[in-house]
Amino acid sequence: MPGYSGTKEQYTKRLRRIEGQVRGIARMVDEDVYCIDVLTQISAVTKALQAVGIGLVEDHLGHCVVDAARSSHEEGQAKVTEAAEAIARLVRS
Amino acid sequence: MPGYSGTKEQYTKRLRRIEGQVRGIARMVDEDVYCIDVLTQISAVTKALQAVGIGLVEDHLGHCVVDAARSSHEEGQAKVTEAAEAIARLVRS
Amino acid sequence: MPGYSGTKEQYTKRLRRIEGQVRGIARMVDEDVYCIDVLTQISAVTKALQAVGIGLVEDHLGHCVVDAARSSHEEGQAKVTEAAEAIARLVRS
Amino acid sequence: MPGYSGTKEQYTKRLRRIEGQVRGIARMVDEDVYCIDVLTQISAVTKALQAVGIGLVEDHLGHCVVDAARSSHEEGQAKVTEAAEAIARLVRS
Repeated sequence: MPGYSGTKEQYTKRLRRIEGQVRGIARMVDEDVYCIDVLTQISAVTKALQAVGIGLVEDHLGHCVVDAARSSHEEGQAKVTEAAEAIARLVRS
Repeated sequence: MPGYSGTKEQYTKRLRRIEGQVRGIARMVDEDVYCIDVLTQISAVTKALQAVGIGLVEDHLGHCVVDAARSSHEEGQAKVTEAAEAIARLVRS
Repeated sequence: MPGYSGTKEQYTKRLRRIEGQVRGIARMVDEDVYCIDVLTQISAVTKALQAVGIGLVEDHLGHCVVDAARSSHEEGQAKVTEAAEAIARLVRS
Repeated sequence: MPGYSGTKEQYTKRLRRIEGQVRGIARMVDEDVYCIDVLTQISAVTKALQAVGIGLVEDHLGHCVVDAARSSHEEGQAKVTEAAEAIARLVRS
């Protein structure tokens, strides 16, 4: 089971809302809404998506990484290297 | 007409693709896909959304801001202040 | 003269403060300060540096870009393309 | 000892280089260098600072968090909560 399985429904709910917000931005563009208002909405959705990412990182560390570390030092290290790469991609995006 | 009106269809197309990608992330979570793979996809979609934002900023500057500046110095300044706030939100998101 | 020349001293002052903060982070590392406290300071300094960048973007748009647009449509467009690339680098950093 | 103690000298070296780069940006402003060139340098230094942050996160996870997890599940969780908050600040900066 993935690290987020305990709060899975909250994530799918948040992601469905984000999906609706992206659809809303496409509609704004289609209806010639003023650039600045479209940009405000893009910043808000980007933040919402990053917040989901941050939540998933915490769940992953708290379950997959902690469990691997408790299993063996080596498994813990391998999971940390993998997690650090994912965090780096999130910071750079 | 907004600054992006000349390339409007490209934006709606990109946004529909992003919408589909967000739906795909919700499906990944629903199907218990490994946390790291979900995170990789979240970083990719965040980047795609920011790229749309950067494109809209360029269109806005090249049309709305340049036009306002050519109309009067004051109108140019007002549009710049507004654009700078939108850019700040984008940088911080 | 660059777009920031009217507020140049404010910028050099803010940058000297940031320089001191980076020196402070190096000292924290040298004195074995707890990782999380070093990270908190890195986030704060990153934000301060981006805030300087956002200020410079606004000054650049309000002077160099507006002036170029008022000189000719073509010069305005050239400055916008250049500014959009700098903004894209700032958003992605 | 903090998680980065094994690579401490590399970090202080990188931070001293960043300190010199920030001083260089202040000098660029003082010498009226073109806005766009100052902005390019600000983006580069922001990236360098975030790269140090990402490295510290990996060291912290690989030492402090793994060690805490191996000590007890509860200590692991407490360290994860703290690390997740630091990562969130880094992503948002």
